[in-house]
Amino acid sequence: MPQLRPQDLAPKIQHTNLNPDATRRDIERLCKECVRYGFDAAVVNPIWVRDAKRLLRGTEVKVCAVVNIPLGGSTTLAKVVEVRNAVAMGCDEVDFMIAVGYLKSGMIEVFREDTEAMVEAAEGRVVKAILEFALLTEDELRTAARVCEESGVHYLKNSSGWGKGGHATVEVVRAMRSVAGPNMRIKASAGIRDYRTAAALVEAGADLLGTSAGVQIVTGAAAESGDQTY
Amino acid sequence: MPQLRPQDLAPKIQHTNLNPDATRRDIERLCKECVRYGFDAAVVNPIWVRDAKRLLRGTEVKVCAVVNIPLGGSTTLAKVVEVRNAVAMGCDEVDFMIAVGYLKSGMIEVFREDTEAMVEAAEGRVVKAILEFALLTEDELRTAARVCEESGVHYLKNSSGWGKGGHATVEVVRAMRSVAGPNMRIKASAGIRDYRTAAALVEAGADLLGTSAGVQIVTGAAAESGDQTY
Repeated sequence: MPQLRPQDLAPKIQHTNLNPDATRRDIERLCKECVRYGFDAAVVNPIWVRDAKRLLRGTEVKVCAVVNIPLGGSTTLAKVVEVRNAVAMGCDEVDFMIAVGYLKSGMIEVFREDTEAMVEAAEGRVVKAILEFALLTEDELRTAARVCEESGVHYLKNSSGWGKGGHATVEVVRAMRSVAGPNMRIKASAGIRDYRTAAALVEAGADLLGTSAGVQIVTGAAAESGDQTY
Repeated sequence: MPQLRPQDLAPKIQHTNLNPDATRRDIERLCKECVRYGFDAAVVNPIWVRDAKRLLRGTEVKVCAVVNIPLGGSTTLAKVVEVRNAVAMGCDEVDFMIAVGYLKSGMIEVFREDTEAMVEAAEGRVVKAILEFALLTEDELRTAARVCEESGVHYLKNSSGWGKGGHATVEVVRAMRSVAGPNMRIKASAGIRDYRTAAALVEAGADLLGTSAGVQIVTGAAAESGDQTY
């Protein structure tokens, strides 16, 4: 396996804290770590977007809000308000969970309207669709990917990490890649705890990694490459 | 332990399906079981409120929508829209997860505004506050209960069942009872899978039980009481 150095990995890491019991202080730490290690984004619940944006002002670290996980049970209207609210507070990216219930009920037009509404509400920000991969049949995965692509979603992301979506694996990343349109990118997420897992997922085609273990991952990469600066 | 008959237990059961992969057909089944067994309410994600309401028209079974679980990370604005939307679609009750992050950050006035906004958005419907009990210190539990009572919340509910809120136990029900105001009621939820657990929680002071195993529980009660009609 080719060696990925810390500086190769860090810009692919979206450093994440969605814990219900995360405090403002925890979000501050998350943001500081993003700056310190050169992570791509701080990923937070909508209630913390404003704080994260303020803390990251003047840096290149983006703020990403996560919506509707892990049940995918919010109405389109409520999610549109959530996304627009997050955009108004300065978030740069939105990860939303697809309406798995509509998809599995064969309500494809409702599913499409819901997906389109997310992209529209994000007003040009990067939008990632959380598939909850482990819940989907191959047909459903294919349908979801097609609707997401046609709706202008930028990334497929395999899992919320909080429900039944499963973990990121090389196979999962490859499966997403195989159904994603040529312009779509892949965010791997859930269960990415160490350097070797992270590196394998990037090698398999993941453009971004969603993880709460970003620090562990880059320090692991530094150790493996003999880099003393981390 | 005094024997609880099926007809004692069924009216306390809020029969629940919040699975992300629940289909319209699953919601139909849930509603049919509510009618068949005399459960108090069908508890569903907001996307299914309209269907559940239609399916239960002409019956006494209520429809309850669940909001913001299990991360508690939605903004007040988004939750207000979610609740008002659910009310507009006919829901009779709202279970919302408290903003644990605000509570744990000591942002008590923001926490209070958030809680009050939920009650106001519900326009007189029964409102239950999901505490995610296992995440809270005793002080936080006390503060949450006080703010909920002062805001007009009707029920304390221990857990979403999807995150880190823990399971319902006799101790949890007693602890909620000890901090709840005299007019507040208790909904026990998460991990209630059989008759004996359900009966013990009711004995301990739970006014309602949130469970996806309602059928199992009443048929268990029937078996223990020798009732042949279930």
